[in-house]
Formats: sequence, structure tokens, C-alpha cells
Amino acid sequence: MLEKINDKLISLHNNKLFESLVIAVIILSSLLIGAKTYNINHNYLIVLEYLDTAVTLFFLTEIVLRFLSWQHKLTFFKNGWNLFDFLIVTISLIPINESEFILLARLIRIFRVLRLVSAIPELRKLVTALIKALPSMGYVVLMMFILFYIYATVGSFLFADINSELWGNITISMLTLFRVITFEDWTDVMYETMQQHKWSWIYYLSFIFFNAFVFLNMMIGIIIEKMNISQAKDRDNLLKQINKKLYDIEQKIKK
Amino acid sequence: MLEKINDKLISLHNNKLFESLVIAVIILSSLLIGAKTYNINHNYLIVLEYLDTAVTLFFLTEIVLRFLSWQHKLTFFKNGWNLFDFLIVTISLIPINESEFILLARLIRIFRVLRLVSAIPELRKLVTALIKALPSMGYVVLMMFILFYIYATVGSFLFADINSELWGNITISMLTLFRVITFEDWTDVMYETMQQHKWSWIYYLSFIFFNAFVFLNMMIGIIIEKMNISQAKDRDNLLKQINKKLYDIEQKIKK
Amino acid sequence: MLEKINDKLISLHNNKLFESLVIAVIILSSLLIGAKTYNINHNYLIVLEYLDTAVTLFFLTEIVLRFLSWQHKLTFFKNGWNLFDFLIVTISLIPINESEFILLARLIRIFRVLRLVSAIPELRKLVTALIKALPSMGYVVLMMFILFYIYATVGSFLFADINSELWGNITISMLTLFRVITFEDWTDVMYETMQQHKWSWIYYLSFIFFNAFVFLNMMIGIIIEKMNISQAKDRDNLLKQINKKLYDIEQKIKK
Amino acid sequence: MLEKINDKLISLHNNKLFESLVIAVIILSSLLIGAKTYNINHNYLIVLEYLDTAVTLFFLTEIVLRFLSWQHKLTFFKNGWNLFDFLIVTISLIPINESEFILLARLIRIFRVLRLVSAIPELRKLVTALIKALPSMGYVVLMMFILFYIYATVGSFLFADINSELWGNITISMLTLFRVITFEDWTDVMYETMQQHKWSWIYYLSFIFFNAFVFLNMMIGIIIEKMNISQAKDRDNLLKQINKKLYDIEQKIKK
Repeated sequence: MLEKINDKLISLHNNKLFESLVIAVIILSSLLIGAKTYNINHNYLIVLEYLDTAVTLFFLTEIVLRFLSWQHKLTFFKNGWNLFDFLIVTISLIPINESEFILLARLIRIFRVLRLVSAIPELRKLVTALIKALPSMGYVVLMMFILFYIYATVGSFLFADINSELWGNITISMLTLFRVITFEDWTDVMYETMQQHKWSWIYYLSFIFFNAFVFLNMMIGIIIEKMNISQAKDRDNLLKQINKKLYDIEQKIKK
Repeated sequence: MLEKINDKLISLHNNKLFESLVIAVIILSSLLIGAKTYNINHNYLIVLEYLDTAVTLFFLTEIVLRFLSWQHKLTFFKNGWNLFDFLIVTISLIPINESEFILLARLIRIFRVLRLVSAIPELRKLVTALIKALPSMGYVVLMMFILFYIYATVGSFLFADINSELWGNITISMLTLFRVITFEDWTDVMYETMQQHKWSWIYYLSFIFFNAFVFLNMMIGIIIEKMNISQAKDRDNLLKQINKKLYDIEQKIKK
Repeated sequence: MLEKINDKLISLHNNKLFESLVIAVIILSSLLIGAKTYNINHNYLIVLEYLDTAVTLFFLTEIVLRFLSWQHKLTFFKNGWNLFDFLIVTISLIPINESEFILLARLIRIFRVLRLVSAIPELRKLVTALIKALPSMGYVVLMMFILFYIYATVGSFLFADINSELWGNITISMLTLFRVITFEDWTDVMYETMQQHKWSWIYYLSFIFFNAFVFLNMMIGIIIEKMNISQAKDRDNLLKQINKKLYDIEQKIKK
Repeated sequence: MLEKINDKLISLHNNKLFESLVIAVIILSSLLIGAKTYNINHNYLIVLEYLDTAVTLFFLTEIVLRFLSWQHKLTFFKNGWNLFDFLIVTISLIPINESEFILLARLIRIFRVLRLVSAIPELRKLVTALIKALPSMGYVVLMMFILFYIYATVGSFLFADINSELWGNITISMLTLFRVITFEDWTDVMYETMQQHKWSWIYYLSFIFFNAFVFLNMMIGIIIEKMNISQAKDRDNLLKQINKKLYDIEQKIKK
């Protein structure tokens, strides 16, 4: 009889309708969270609370059903998305006294929106691709961080006396440099320091140039890397096969 | 005799000169619309009105002629561009009392400028390409929307008391976050919240980083997708053919 | 004897040293123009004037020498760069009363800087590439112009009463929209109109989205176009040749 | 016995643990430099000084060890990274009176952060790639500089009387134009000049357009160049080999 239930559970999970229901509940849950940012009537707030509890229960049921329908129970948590959903559901079950830790309770609930990612296969692919791209971007980010660090130290030594709010210490300087890189009122920052250090525009322009330069190379590097791996290799292998066959034919003809 | 007229209509429509005339009238119509944004003399305004009516009549004639010269009348509206032109022409025929709904009447006429797109084949191709690219961008847009939604909720909970004009509710917060993503005076927004929440720069920097990251991947993904589809497939098929032929030759030589 | 001179002229023109001299004089000429933007002593100004005349004479001599050393005199002006240099040299010979048309006289001289482009082969290649890329960008620019035109008309109708300096007529509106597209204080523009038209953020966001969308496609389109033309065609032809040869071999083996 | 020591040195240098230690010390050294930008207690400052001396000694030891373990001593400085590390270490050994040249002493020490680049192989590759990309970007930078130069001269002639702080001479004008290209409050600059020269928006828009245009081509050019060199050549060579073999087979069959 257990098997029968199991089969039913699996067929339920592969059911398109059930999948759509899950997505619908996640969207409802997201809207509930968004609704709370508005100043709403107390009566509606109570309705929201009830809906919230209903959503929590639905999520709990769904994850339990998914676990039960999973063939090899031991591998359930090896799947990143299962673990992800499980954590989001269980954490939101922890009874937090809303009056005291209202902010924490709300923040935890916000992560439910991320369940949309795990529920829609296409978004899951996208996130997987993003995570895979992380290592190849890691060293470029490190390179840019070194650039930021050096320029922030120099800026802090040279300009701290001019404006300590922008160049007071290395942390603030790095934030200021990030502002410069986004071109956000960066000329105000520059004109201020140029009044005392006439040549300080070299500092800003070289920083912008180096960063743009590194970024450009990063982009090209990643594009090349991503483009060549899968398809080109297949084609090259095919070409090598063809070349090998021709060699064999040549040898046979010679004989 | 009807056939004769039909032939003439078709030859008229394929006439380069007639095509140029249509484009010229669309441009004239666009200029008329633009001219109305200036404060112009009442006398000229009357001239503009007459020209406007003339353009409307010309457009009506053109679409009727096109319909008559269309071979399979039933498929006429299956062509998106025909439907598009037809809607623009007919909607502008609805008699709207200009004194009351002046804005609506004007807005409808503005869409006539879009007829330039349907009249110039190269622009038609461009728009078709844009529409085809939409689905592949859809999920990335959804991903970015989820990011916006989560950050907007967090921002709304944390910063609503600091500045309700920027973080009052989730809608306003999303608009503020869009402003941050365009780097438009984003440091003003950040410095304000940093006075109360010293570590709120993490909120802004992580948001900018994640969005840029998603965008970068989107761009690479679309480029790869678009580049590989048509040309590479042809080449791969050719390579497979060559491989197949070589195999056949090898078999024959063995015998 | 004429031939001898001609040979000498040609060898002079192919001389690396002479080429470097020409580039040096162009750079000197550019520096002279730049120097005049500073408030300089009257005595130096006279020196600059003499140097200017010397440069003009050198340029005249160089173009005459080039013409004389040109083999087929009739084709001299068919070469775009010759024509370009010739025009810059001759126009600067026109005696302009500096006291009256000082601005015009100066502007003409500024174009001498462009001779650097025609003197350095690598820059010449770059400019040729830019000119070749123009047509493929033309229709995208037209598409974006249509977008600007439509939004400018709508903006002008809706917001002219709110701020006539930004939305007074279609020309001003287009300039304002260009400002929006560069993200330059665009939120100030938006917040102003949002006070009367609460939903006007849709106007701005859709405009930014469509433009970025068109731009993205333009970029991808041009990259694909440029990448595939030369190299891929060679490769495809080679593959077809290989395929053809294999077919021939197959036919022969059958016999 | 010397050989034994040498072997030990080489094995030490290839030791993963030693490599990690070097990187750890560089990071410590970087943190020390960063720490000095904060207002810190005098006692801690003395500790920092001692740590600084310790780091200097460690760096000195490391470079000496590396030199001793280098097989062909004469080629040691031909390796760019060795020379780079050597310079950073030796310069920081020069006894500078901190009270007088405190800024210089600090700036020299900042360059120690760059040792992170030479210590991590992946960053070394990245920098090598950047340096290799420089020549191919050189002419594009020159092209953009010519554009800047011409527009700066024109701007200086036309707008110097309007705002000498922005357009006073060619150097200031170029800085202002760089500001325009980063879209930083560029409309303020434009609106100011538009009050006297109504058509000056053409100046700004054409400048932005040309620069973006050049940049776009640069990017495409570099991407194409980088993508095609290595992989495509290998594939083309393979195709040519295949073609050659087929020709040989054909000839043999004919006989």
C-alpha cells in the first residue's frame, strides 16, 4: 500500500497543475510580504497573518511530500535546491516573538520569494549558470580589489585632510572610489581635491582607466571561455576523426 | 476587367515610386504631429488640420488598395504588419471630439509615426528580431525582478522611517532601487541611510553587484545563443556529411 | 631628367624619415593650435604666427610633392585621403581677415589635427572601418530616432505645462529624453512630472527599457555581422571543397 | 654541500606551504598599510612599525632565497616579475627620514600590495594578458585622444568667455569633455553654453556619439582579434591538411 501512495505522490509532483499551484502559492506569499510594506488597516493585517500561516503550512506539506516521493531518501539533501527549500521552510517555522524581533521575522519571510527560483526550472538553470561563472570571475574581482585597495590607501594619505568624510580612512576611501567608478558626482570629489593638489586629476583618470581596462578584459575573457568550451570541442573532435580516417585510407591505398 | 485592375494595383504596390510616396506621407504625418507641440499661429493650425485630414485619407486609400491587391483576402490580417497598419488607420478614423479628448486624439495620431517601421523593410526586420529576442530575455528579466522585489522589501522594512519618500512602500522602493541601478545620485540615497544604519552600504553594493552580474550573464547568454544557431548548425551538418562519406569509402576499400 | 626627379620624389615619399617628419610637423601644428587657447604673451604670439605660416608652407609643399610623385595624376583625387589632405591645406590658404573672422580662421586650422589620421596608416584603417560600419548602424539609429520622436511628442503633450524648459516642444523634449537616456539627473525630471501625473514613471522606465533593448540588439547584430563575414566564409568554402572532392572519389570508387 | 643547500632552496620554493606563507605575509603587509590610514593609538603604532620592519626583512630574505635558488643567475632579472619584486623590496630598504618625507615613504610601501599580483599565478596571467592587449588598444586610444583634442580646442575657443573654469584652456577643456563622456552633470555644462550659443547641443551630442561609436568599434575589434587568433587558426590548419590529403588520394586513384 505504501508503494501505491508513493506512486501517487510522484505522479502528483510531476503533475503540471500541482507545479503551477506551488508557483501560485509562492507568488501569493511574495505578495503578502510586499503588502506588509504598506500602511494597512488592522483588520486586513489579521487576514494577512492567517494567509501567512496557511502559506507556511502549504510549504511545509509540499516539502514533506517531496521528501516522501524522493526515491533515495539519503540523497535528498545532496540536491542543492532541496536543501535550499528545506532551510527556507524550516527557518520560517521557528517561533519568533514578532513584537521583539519583528525585523528578523520579516527578513526571514522575504527569502520565501527566492523559492520562485527553485520552483521554475528556467530560473534554476540561470542561477546554476551564475554560480558556475563565479570562479572565472573570482580572480578578476580580486585584481580589481587590489586596485581599489592601493588607490584607497594613496587617496587616504593624500586627501584625508581635505575631506575626512570621503577620505578619512581606507574603508571610506574605497566607498568613495566605488562612487567614482559609478561616475556618481565624481567631479565634485575631484574638483575638491584639485584645489589643493592641482595634479590629482591624474589619480582619478588613471583609476577609471585601469578599472575600465580590467573590466573590458574580464568581459572578453569570460565570453571567449564560455563560447568555446562546449561546441568548439565537439567540432574539433569531429575534424580530428575525419583527419584520422583519411590517414587510414591513404595507408590502405598505398598498399 | 476586375483582374486588370487587380494587376494594376499589384504593380502599383510593387512600384518603388509609390513605396517612396508612402514613406514620404508618413514622414509628413510625423512632422505634422511634431509641429503641433510648438505654439503656432491659429492660421497655420488650420492648414495643419487640413493636411492631417489629407494624410488620414491617403492612409485609408493606401490600406484599401493594399487589401484589394492582396491575393488571398482571408490571410490579409494574418500578416502582423497589415493588422498593425489597419488598426492605426481605423483607430484614427474614430471621430473624437478634440475639445474634450484632445489628449487622446493626439496620442492616437502619434502612433502613425510607427507606420514608418512597417513601411521600411529593414526596420521591419529589426523589429521582428527584437520580438524574437524577447522570450530569451524573459527569464532574465524575471530573475532581475525577483532581485528587485527582495531588495525593495528589505529596503522598505529597514529604511521606511528614514525617508518615506524613497522607501515608503515596496513600489516606491523598487523605483528607488531602479534609480540606484542607473547610478543616479545613488550615493545621496546611501549616505542618508548610512547615518542610521552604518552598514547599509553592503545593501547597496551587493544589489549593484548582483544586478551587474546577472546582466553580464544575460548578455553573454544571448550573444552565444544568437551566434550559434544558424551558421554553426549548417557547418556541423556539413562536417557530419563528410564524416559519413569517409566511412562509406572506408567500407568499400576494405572490400 | 624629369623622370629622375620623379623617382627621387617617390623614394622621398616612401622614406620612413620623411614620413616621421610629416607626422612631427602635424603634431607641432596641433600643439600650436592648442597653445593659442592659453593666455599667452604677445611676443610669443608673434612666434606662434610665424611657426603657423611655416607649417602652412610645409603642408603646401608636401601635398604638391605628393601630387608630383603620383603616377596617374588623374586618379589623385579619387583617393579619399588625398582629397581630404588637399582640402585641409587649400582651405587654410584662403586669406581670412583674422580680426573679423578670427573664430572661423581658427576653426579651419583645428582640422589640421585630423591630418594625423591620414598620416598614420593604422588610424587610416580605423577610420575606414568606422565608415564601413556606418550603414549597418544606420537603421538602428533610425529605429532609435523613431522611439525618441514618439516619446518626445507624448512627453511634450503631457508635460509641457509642468516644465516648459524641459518639455516645451518636440526638440527640447528630445534633448531631455537624451538626458534621461544618459541617466543624468533623470530622477529629478521624473519626480517633477510624477507630482502631477502619478504614473509617469511608466513613461520613463519603458523608454529606458526599449532603448537599452534596441541598443543591446544592435551591438549583438554588429558583432555577429563583423565576425562571420570574412573568416567563416573562407572556412565554409573550404568545407564545401572537401565535400565535393569526397563525392568525386566516391564516384570513382564505385566504378 | 652548496648543491645540497641549493636543492633544498628549490624544494622550499616549490613548496605549497611556503608559497602560502609568502602570500600571507604580503596580505599582512597590505593590512599594515591600510591600518595606518586610521587614527590609531601611539602604542599600536609602535607595534605596526615593528611588524613593518619584520615584513621588510621577510621580503628581503625571500628575494635573496629566490635569487640563490635560481639556476641561471644571469637570467634572473630578465624575468619581469623577479625584477618587479626586486625593485619593490630594494626601494623600501632606502632609509627615508619619515618625519620629512613621510608621504613618499608611505607611498613606496603601498606598492608592496602589488606583490600579491606577482605571488598569485592567476593574477600574473591576468596582468600579462592586460599588457598584451595594450598595443591593440593603443591606436584606438590615440584616435579618441585626437577627438578629445579637436573638441577641446573648439570648446575652448567658443566657450572660454562663458565659463573659464570649465573651458579656460585646452587642458581644462579636455577634463571637462572627459566629464561629459562620463555623463557626470554634463547637462549643467551644456545648458550653460546653450544660453549664449543656442546650437551648442550639437557640439555635445556629436562628441558623445563619435566617442561611443569609436569605443563600440574598439570593443568589437578587440573581441574579434582575441577570439580568432588561437583556436580558429588551429582549426583552419587542420582543414587545410584534410584538403591536402584528399587531393593526394584523388591523384593516386586517377593513376
